[in-house]
Amino acid sequence: MAENAFDSSDSVRHANPLRYAQTFTFDGPFHLELGGQLPSVTVCYETYGKLNAARDNAVFVCHAISGDSHVAQHDPGDDPGWWDIAVGPGKAIDTGRYFVVCANLLGGCRGTTGPGSINPETGKPYARDFPTVTVGDMVEVQRRLIAHLGIKKLLAVTGGSMGGHQALTWATRFPDQVAGVMALATSPRLTSQALAFDVVARNAIMRDPHYHAGQYYDKKTKPEVGLAIARMIGHITYLSPEAMSQKFETDRFQPRDVPVEFEKKFSVGSYLGYQGQKFVERFDANSYLTITMAMDLFDLGTTPQDLAKTFAPARCQWLIVSYTSDWLFPPFQSRAMVDALIANNIPVSYSNVRSDCGHDAFLLPDNFATYGELMRAFLANLRGAPLENAVQPVPDGLGNAPTSIFHKRRVDYDRIVELIPDGATVLDLGCGRGGLLARVKKKSGHRVVGIELKEASVLTAVRRGVDVIQADLNDGLRSFADKQFDCVLLSQTLQAIYDVEGVLNEMLRVGKQGIVTFPNMAYEPLRRMLADEGRAPKSTGLLRHEWYNSPNIRFLSIADFEDFCRAKGLHIHRQIALNTEKDIEVTSDPNRHADFAIFVISRQAEAKQNP
Amino acid sequence: MAENAFDSSDSVRHANPLRYAQTFTFDGPFHLELGGQLPSVTVCYETYGKLNAARDNAVFVCHAISGDSHVAQHDPGDDPGWWDIAVGPGKAIDTGRYFVVCANLLGGCRGTTGPGSINPETGKPYARDFPTVTVGDMVEVQRRLIAHLGIKKLLAVTGGSMGGHQALTWATRFPDQVAGVMALATSPRLTSQALAFDVVARNAIMRDPHYHAGQYYDKKTKPEVGLAIARMIGHITYLSPEAMSQKFETDRFQPRDVPVEFEKKFSVGSYLGYQGQKFVERFDANSYLTITMAMDLFDLGTTPQDLAKTFAPARCQWLIVSYTSDWLFPPFQSRAMVDALIANNIPVSYSNVRSDCGHDAFLLPDNFATYGELMRAFLANLRGAPLENAVQPVPDGLGNAPTSIFHKRRVDYDRIVELIPDGATVLDLGCGRGGLLARVKKKSGHRVVGIELKEASVLTAVRRGVDVIQADLNDGLRSFADKQFDCVLLSQTLQAIYDVEGVLNEMLRVGKQGIVTFPNMAYEPLRRMLADEGRAPKSTGLLRHEWYNSPNIRFLSIADFEDFCRAKGLHIHRQIALNTEKDIEVTSDPNRHADFAIFVISRQAEAKQNP
Repeated sequence: MAENAFDSSDSVRHANPLRYAQTFTFDGPFHLELGGQLPSVTVCYETYGKLNAARDNAVFVCHAISGDSHVAQHDPGDDPGWWDIAVGPGKAIDTGRYFVVCANLLGGCRGTTGPGSINPETGKPYARDFPTVTVGDMVEVQRRLIAHLGIKKLLAVTGGSMGGHQALTWATRFPDQVAGVMALATSPRLTSQALAFDVVARNAIMRDPHYHAGQYYDKKTKPEVGLAIARMIGHITYLSPEAMSQKFETDRFQPRDVPVEFEKKFSVGSYLGYQGQKFVERFDANSYLTITMAMDLFDLGTTPQDLAKTFAPARCQWLIVSYTSDWLFPPFQSRAMVDALIANNIPVSYSNVRSDCGHDAFLLPDNFATYGELMRAFLANLRGAPLENAVQPVPDGLGNAPTSIFHKRRVDYDRIVELIPDGATVLDLGCGRGGLLARVKKKSGHRVVGIELKEASVLTAVRRGVDVIQADLNDGLRSFADKQFDCVLLSQTLQAIYDVEGVLNEMLRVGKQGIVTFPNMAYEPLRRMLADEGRAPKSTGLLRHEWYNSPNIRFLSIADFEDFCRAKGLHIHRQIALNTEKDIEVTSDPNRHADFAIFVISRQAEAKQNP
Repeated sequence: MAENAFDSSDSVRHANPLRYAQTFTFDGPFHLELGGQLPSVTVCYETYGKLNAARDNAVFVCHAISGDSHVAQHDPGDDPGWWDIAVGPGKAIDTGRYFVVCANLLGGCRGTTGPGSINPETGKPYARDFPTVTVGDMVEVQRRLIAHLGIKKLLAVTGGSMGGHQALTWATRFPDQVAGVMALATSPRLTSQALAFDVVARNAIMRDPHYHAGQYYDKKTKPEVGLAIARMIGHITYLSPEAMSQKFETDRFQPRDVPVEFEKKFSVGSYLGYQGQKFVERFDANSYLTITMAMDLFDLGTTPQDLAKTFAPARCQWLIVSYTSDWLFPPFQSRAMVDALIANNIPVSYSNVRSDCGHDAFLLPDNFATYGELMRAFLANLRGAPLENAVQPVPDGLGNAPTSIFHKRRVDYDRIVELIPDGATVLDLGCGRGGLLARVKKKSGHRVVGIELKEASVLTAVRRGVDVIQADLNDGLRSFADKQFDCVLLSQTLQAIYDVEGVLNEMLRVGKQGIVTFPNMAYEPLRRMLADEGRAPKSTGLLRHEWYNSPNIRFLSIADFEDFCRAKGLHIHRQIALNTEKDIEVTSDPNRHADFAIFVISRQAEAKQNP
């Protein structure tokens, strides 16, 4: 059995996690979204760091199904928290800068009112009399808590998985109370598959003969087998197949000798049995039913139209993170939320972090270098202090290598920035590390968004304070509405795109104008290379690659692009030809004398500039 | 709820499925692989079609966990079978041509000896005294059955999922008794994730208080909840997330009113409850434990080395099929078996069928046009009667469009076939519909294999009787050993490959020689196009595309390729330059006068042909 096969957030559970917890009770009746009420509600919470004088540095952390208020250690001697990697002095959610609040969920079993709490009207636990609560009810309780703490508006609310559901609810229902949202590994509603697993888990609990219709608190036997089965199913869904394989493939037939009454034939079996049995010791089956049901009922919509409507009021800053191997809350669901925000022109950055860790990734250190730093940068931007200085300068002057023809300065950037009207909204396709976009933003002062495929570049761009969406241009720009941007940039990317027509079509659908730049393959020295030497053209900078390893897979000249625009009914508003070797603009026979071209185009033929 | 949401193989279960079943009993002791024995074994089986005089037309169909001997209807009035789409007169497994046998598994509960059978030594059901049986034991029972039927060698054995495990066992243990194997949606062993689901399912059964340590046969209560939970988990894993979404997304909150005692809050919940409850009516919990354990213990190895060793004796013909959305038996597992067969030079064709149906795909009609026709063609090849005539002629003379420069005849094919020595083993990278490969096979009479990405082309190539592996060249040729082939072809594909160096490296690793053909971009008219007109070169045939939509993404000349070979230490044994417009071979300044080149190359500098 792999040494760390039993390490997980569970294995560091603490004997007395509530040492620093406080409670706040408000008397009811507390009316619930789906009807019913609670006579009073007690919230168990913990805080970290200090609320500043302006009371504008509070970050609310929402936990997932089985978490609690103990998000992090309060001091080195304290029990481990469930998100120690993220919360603490100097950490991504820096308790030296932010006042962090985390509270146990309504319906939970870690100090906040839940099915195991005493119903003051009967003097017995609520059990199955505990009403159906929603994520909205949970957030309402959190709102009362922050009011109690004297906070009018949160700097940020964050959470992963079902914690993300709460964060989404905060932002869509109470946008005035939230400056920013960081939603990790979450979704607008569960997939049918995820929902199905929850249903089976609840059936396992409720059909356990020891469930006693929920009134098992005073019984000798409890629905422990059902709850353990539920937890086992959960554990499988939290791990990616890759992670399971890494943990259990090599020693499959060597179960660990754990003191459990479940099957112990396989390493993965002893792991699951152990996790199931441990969970029963710390969790209440009725809370499991209550909380999973709230999650299953959570529904911000399915169609893009529904989602766009739901997210329309959520006018705060957004950071959305998904994980490539998360099959319980798959990345396409995060992307759907990104699309809904974009449709509403709400600022959002998105990264689909490459990870082998599955849904658990948001709790694990493996990919924290990306998603933790994204959170740090996002919070800094919210406070108006971008981490731009943290952006490493590019040493070789190649900018977004390998897409630069330039050696010293970005003369093309100078020209592009000039071409963009003040106040224009701008989308940059293939924005790289956001260098151009940051300059455009400085100039236009208006909404700018970048699209970039590379994870590291996305992080750098976010540090620079620009909104960037991690996506593949070849998949299209479906997030964006027709003519959503004044100007769409395609800077030195055209020649590296497979689906040229698709990308240009999309570009001119979502942009009133497009600015396209590319190297000119009919530049005289390149022509000569083929004509006289019989070899594929090659140069320096952007064209320094060999025919067999170049990122440039489209071979075109200025004349070719002019032909293309003619054939496709595109209007050329402006075209600038540069000779970057001589650092001059070319006006005479540019298709021969220029090595670089900038085109301003649009789809519909507007009034020509030079009749 | 979607109308067909409850349609599945289960919903067509028959009241009396065993109307045509026969039984065969052999007295023991029947010794089991892991120790223990059975005093006697009864096999319940059904047959279809007629065994021919040579007794060489028998196809054995192995069923998966919950199937039985009733693979298909015997007549139009008969109850539906579980694989009616595949087995019947004129169908892929044509009962007009083949003698089809299907038997209930050892350990099952549909007529063959299993835990519910009476133990003759006690006069009571075996229950948990039924010994642990393996897939090997199941196959041993099947062998005794076919001996009883007077069959020495099966034409083919086939099965999906755990049925595939049995087929693999037949071929690896008893290769002399099998001419061909068709293994669908299967694996050399379960993934850790799939194994984990089985463990949870067994825990749900065995920890059901009504399990009574397995002796529930005479009890009033049986472990029905546990078995139903197990089946619900199974159902989730058989469906892809896409299929679940299609079935349950739109009416999520509208459960069907089914008479079950499970949660009925969501459409998917009522579906699962219904499936679980129905399963309990027809299946025995002890059989479920026995059969899943056999599947979980099944293990042909994990490392490529282990697998190569296991498959070494399996010298028959193979067809392996996986389904893109199958996450229970994911495609990479099928590919691992393909690799193991290739490592042993065992003939295999492989298709990873594009499907939304998940693991269930092999039981469903949705993708049968591909995998059914693959089976039909494979069986015809086994009988020595390829379906080549069924291959549609290509109407426009473009061969494997869009990779042909030629208009009338494949003059390049003529030359390539000439270049291949008699008896050479040949691998064709990007073999398309197998046209070249079929010609090569006719000439070399030896082992030829193709690699092709396109599903439809793979099917055509299999119909032609050549072995073809569906794969992406850019992923490399890891299946193949160093110098495994005398000759590797890369015909008109080089210019469409992104990772040129990687593919050529791999090509010359697995081939003693490589034959590379490509269009020459330094052909005089193409040079002129750039030099004089300043436009990207374009021609007819292979070069008929525009710069923005061409599949050709690498721009190279004959001189470039010569330079490349020099730089990379490749030896050029032979080079032939053609002018396909004039239909002549070019000897004077080919880089200017030829539009097409054929190179014979190898990695190590061997004795030069022309010193």
